[in-house]
Amino acid sequence: MSADSHTDFAQALLAPRAIALVGASGDARKNTARPLRFMRKHGYSGSVYPINATRTEILGERAYPDLTRLPGPVDHVFVMIPGEHIGRVIEESAAAGARVVTIYSDGFAETGPDGQARQQALVTRARELGVRVLGPNSIGTANLHSGGIVSVNAAFEADDLAPGDISMVSQSGSMMGSLLSRAAARGFGFASSVSVGNESDISVGEVVDALVRDPHTKVILLFLETLRQAPILSAALRRAQRAGKPVVAYKLGRSEQGDALAQSHTGALAGNDAAVDAFFRAHGVLRVHHLETLFEIVPLAARYGGVQAAHGGAPRVAVITTTGGGAATVVDNLGMRGLVAAAPPAEFVTHMAQRGLRIRSAPVIDLTLAARPEQYKDLLEQLLIADWCDAVLSVAGSSAQFHPDFAVNPLIQARKPDGKPVVAFLAPEAPASLALLRQQGIAAFRTPESCADALAVLFQRRHDAGHPAQAQQPGTSSIDWPADIPRHGALTEYEAGRIFQALGLPIARSVLADAATLDHDVPYPVVAKVSSRDVPHKTDAGAVRVGIADAGGLRAAVDAMLANVARHAPDAAVDGILVQAMEDRLLELILGYRRDPMVGPTVLLGAGGIAAELNPDFSIRLAPVSEAEARVMIEEVRVTQLIRGYRGLPRGDCDALARAIAAFSRLALLNAVTVAEAEINPLFVRADGVVAVDGLLRVA
Amino acid sequence: MSADSHTDFAQALLAPRAIALVGASGDARKNTARPLRFMRKHGYSGSVYPINATRTEILGERAYPDLTRLPGPVDHVFVMIPGEHIGRVIEESAAAGARVVTIYSDGFAETGPDGQARQQALVTRARELGVRVLGPNSIGTANLHSGGIVSVNAAFEADDLAPGDISMVSQSGSMMGSLLSRAAARGFGFASSVSVGNESDISVGEVVDALVRDPHTKVILLFLETLRQAPILSAALRRAQRAGKPVVAYKLGRSEQGDALAQSHTGALAGNDAAVDAFFRAHGVLRVHHLETLFEIVPLAARYGGVQAAHGGAPRVAVITTTGGGAATVVDNLGMRGLVAAAPPAEFVTHMAQRGLRIRSAPVIDLTLAARPEQYKDLLEQLLIADWCDAVLSVAGSSAQFHPDFAVNPLIQARKPDGKPVVAFLAPEAPASLALLRQQGIAAFRTPESCADALAVLFQRRHDAGHPAQAQQPGTSSIDWPADIPRHGALTEYEAGRIFQALGLPIARSVLADAATLDHDVPYPVVAKVSSRDVPHKTDAGAVRVGIADAGGLRAAVDAMLANVARHAPDAAVDGILVQAMEDRLLELILGYRRDPMVGPTVLLGAGGIAAELNPDFSIRLAPVSEAEARVMIEEVRVTQLIRGYRGLPRGDCDALARAIAAFSRLALLNAVTVAEAEINPLFVRADGVVAVDGLLRVA
Repeated sequence: MSADSHTDFAQALLAPRAIALVGASGDARKNTARPLRFMRKHGYSGSVYPINATRTEILGERAYPDLTRLPGPVDHVFVMIPGEHIGRVIEESAAAGARVVTIYSDGFAETGPDGQARQQALVTRARELGVRVLGPNSIGTANLHSGGIVSVNAAFEADDLAPGDISMVSQSGSMMGSLLSRAAARGFGFASSVSVGNESDISVGEVVDALVRDPHTKVILLFLETLRQAPILSAALRRAQRAGKPVVAYKLGRSEQGDALAQSHTGALAGNDAAVDAFFRAHGVLRVHHLETLFEIVPLAARYGGVQAAHGGAPRVAVITTTGGGAATVVDNLGMRGLVAAAPPAEFVTHMAQRGLRIRSAPVIDLTLAARPEQYKDLLEQLLIADWCDAVLSVAGSSAQFHPDFAVNPLIQARKPDGKPVVAFLAPEAPASLALLRQQGIAAFRTPESCADALAVLFQRRHDAGHPAQAQQPGTSSIDWPADIPRHGALTEYEAGRIFQALGLPIARSVLADAATLDHDVPYPVVAKVSSRDVPHKTDAGAVRVGIADAGGLRAAVDAMLANVARHAPDAAVDGILVQAMEDRLLELILGYRRDPMVGPTVLLGAGGIAAELNPDFSIRLAPVSEAEARVMIEEVRVTQLIRGYRGLPRGDCDALARAIAAFSRLALLNAVTVAEAEINPLFVRADGVVAVDGLLRVA
Repeated sequence: MSADSHTDFAQALLAPRAIALVGASGDARKNTARPLRFMRKHGYSGSVYPINATRTEILGERAYPDLTRLPGPVDHVFVMIPGEHIGRVIEESAAAGARVVTIYSDGFAETGPDGQARQQALVTRARELGVRVLGPNSIGTANLHSGGIVSVNAAFEADDLAPGDISMVSQSGSMMGSLLSRAAARGFGFASSVSVGNESDISVGEVVDALVRDPHTKVILLFLETLRQAPILSAALRRAQRAGKPVVAYKLGRSEQGDALAQSHTGALAGNDAAVDAFFRAHGVLRVHHLETLFEIVPLAARYGGVQAAHGGAPRVAVITTTGGGAATVVDNLGMRGLVAAAPPAEFVTHMAQRGLRIRSAPVIDLTLAARPEQYKDLLEQLLIADWCDAVLSVAGSSAQFHPDFAVNPLIQARKPDGKPVVAFLAPEAPASLALLRQQGIAAFRTPESCADALAVLFQRRHDAGHPAQAQQPGTSSIDWPADIPRHGALTEYEAGRIFQALGLPIARSVLADAATLDHDVPYPVVAKVSSRDVPHKTDAGAVRVGIADAGGLRAAVDAMLANVARHAPDAAVDGILVQAMEDRLLELILGYRRDPMVGPTVLLGAGGIAAELNPDFSIRLAPVSEAEARVMIEEVRVTQLIRGYRGLPRGDCDALARAIAAFSRLALLNAVTVAEAEINPLFVRADGVVAVDGLLRVA
């Protein structure tokens, strides 16, 4: 699409000037009567055309039998009739000038293969006609500035929905209404909301793109069950970043059970939630863990979206309170999320004493009895310019309940420089104080859990090295794929090793010896493995022996292994015997590469050994990664502490490890072939370098 | 105390008939004017005597200069004057007949050693006089049935505080008010609330005991920063269990940071939150993770406190909903807490079809468009008698917001048998629906996180084998402490091994050989260690060698080790050389025993090896434990999956392991000596048995 075309699309989707309601009912009790009613209620001033074959008037508005006889053009058609008639509506919509057709009707992809086929046919025809489809199974869109409520969502019955600068995109129609109602009850105003339904044509990414262009939208919220069309979303998120519009996501699937449910619910590909996390992280998306944090974090995201802990370590939060117990509930949760409640240093205590306020150097500054409001405000201002904390948390007690002005005024009046977030947690039930803070754009939380969630998410370490997608453009330098290595299917360990070596990874010294002669020049002791692409699981097949002391031992070991292979896989073609040097190490790790079905190439660093399967300990990123980002990954894998100075143990070569991770991740840049998955397991880390001891690679 | 005396105490604490307010102010704006105002507001009909040396009338009530000139006896005195005058008040209180003096004043133990001494002197004198002290630093007590608000807590300004059957004990005065206000806003009514302050005399346990006797109290909530006087609390919790009054706790300290803060805040001993968890578990206390779950769980705890998953595995929850996305938010959280969203089996689907309702066999039963209210009710009732689920979760969408009656009536009207919990999560902002459910005693949650928290806590596996305290009574059979083993300080490994062996633990075959002759009959290869109680950390001192092949190797190894020890600890007395058989194993574990400063003897089973320090993987219980409970501990340590059938790996002897854990835990039963801590590290698990390879033991 051209820029103009993008603008037309965004306008038709988010701010239509003329709307047709196909299947609008004259019975006010029916869902299909809602859009017209909602638009009146919210003061829509554009043209609305109810379409109903059997009536000439609907709720006092002139109705039309179909889209061919409208008095003027429409740009958005909302379809509430059964699926079999929708094909005709698409044709008529195109003729009537519509750019977007939103389909509320269900019975498409979500019902199985037949519905999928019907949906595909609809979208194919719509594309031919130049019409974009939102849905099917979309509960609609709403613009709270224009009152253009193209939706049957009961949430718009509410009287407290106010226009504002938040927009929401949801894969769940019903949750969009639920979240709007919760946010509205707390005084948050909305620009647009869009339910994407089955995403047959318009996906979340395109809606985000439209919202980036929308002048009313400052913060974009996503309620996601899965990721579809990640490349489109990726581009839109990059544009959102450039436009300074933060994107916050709540995505189902943090548990395996939730992931499976969301996938089955949406008919999407089974995914890997950790890969989705890596995708969010690479695009600066703030993924919250708690449902209400999705909107509660908005004031933080809007103003402090780019903050980082000043010293690169755990973010330090200065905590001031009039309720020690209330502050402790947040501090406990901050601790579980890796943030530090920082005690003021002695100089700061002295500094405040000079300004007339006595505080203690404790992780929570308790002002229960000590401070007047102006002192509270002064302390806040001094904390907000202090260099020993990265954020300020103010926890209010009973005053928030009974004296809202008094409780929140210091926070409202304090000078709040950019770059250091300030948030409030209100310990008692205190809706008036929450509303006052909301009005002033100050982040205020009802639960200690969501307060800690928001701070943790805000400070989550950002991708340091630009977006990997930039490095994935065609033409980025890469290696040549050797002519004698297959370009499809599984490689042998020897072949995989050659690819890894070409990428720059150190691999254990190996010779592919003839199974008869066993000629090799690897010093003993050695490891021997039967090389065969028909035996992918060598250990299970009895095709690996370690600690072989001499040539005699090698001969005996090989004969025994070949007998095992003959039993285990009688038809296996054996290339030879891989003779490998025995390597020592300080630590065993795993390096994994996978082209994720949702988000594309990913690289994983994890703890090695079978016990690690039971205690997940890994870090994952979109591939490729820079060495700097690889260093962050190393720090995220807990077991690497064993080679980073823990208890005086010898240090491993983390520079070499970071180089190896970055090199391995460049599998994503190969031009000639597409690698589906690859693994180095184990990767040995030593005091001087790393070495890949075993590996596999499968071409797509 | 006698039973009568207990009753008198409980009555004076929770339901005083005459109250004196020492330091009551006539200035209505002051905190010290609040109790009188609150009691009027809440209709207290007993006698109230304001005590004020300078006034004869306070807020229209006759005031008295001191406690000696009251017209009648008092049973509860509330003290709001500076600390230095309190000694006199205690004397006068006793003379006036008071059983309980509650001290709001601060400046005692929380300020340091001097304050601690003042507090101790006060309590000692009070005990001599037969008066019990609540506080100092207590915000007071309140009885919402009688209106006896002996408190300055601003929370009692509120108009919506209703009498009910929940009582709360809090170590934080300010958080008690905050929690009351939150619960009251949701329609929960309270019997009593008690702020224990510094617990100088009356501790949480004694308040719980009083609440067990209180006819108005059905559920007891605890907000805790630490545990003080655990034996008293233990006895009270057992009485609460016998009385069928569930106890729910929110305790700070789930993170190290939160634990440290709570300890410093309260001046209590540094503790081990995992040990506190074990204490709660042993006493059937429901420890919630989310703040609001503390009261939201009450209807569940009150009616279904004793439920367990029917089949002993992960609890199975049937989920019905009118919002797929809303249900998924809870299911995702349930998955993270180890609960399963169970799909109805085919027979149940058929059964419901015969009753006229078509449902699918999916983990969430989605009734968005399908069901009338009576069908929803029927499905609920059928689920509540089905044998394939342990609990039922109903998730309501927009109807909860706009049609509260319609949305919650099926839930209210359904027959709800005991033994299978039913809970509701309301996806939109829906205060009216929440209130309706509350009125009917049905647990209803505002956030998916607290909903999952409550279900997870409710089903947390209970201590199977009676309370360990019963087994700890004097006279329980134990071992004799050998006469030649020291009764204080650290034992050598050899001595510790003899104790472990006496308890019934298999230990590696060991001989304490003379360092000169090295005579022993352990077959080679062997391990050799220098035995000296002056060298507790043998590895650090170079005093351990493994894999010694023969007598020559042993001599050389011992000479080298003795040289190391001479350098490392020149004055160390060497008992001899411990020569030990080399043992093989499938898995290395750690067994730990510790007399926790808060909760007493605890036993821990954990993953072995240094990497386990970085990935905590352990299970802890109050000691001693039965073999049955030890089996549950084994299942809780994730790494034991490696010896319980994971990936076809050889199975370890879990029966022997359970016996070893139970035997080791009997360190808690020794009569002659008190073991401070002991550890077997590593404990090797084999296919046939277990064996302790190294160990230590320190007597208190």
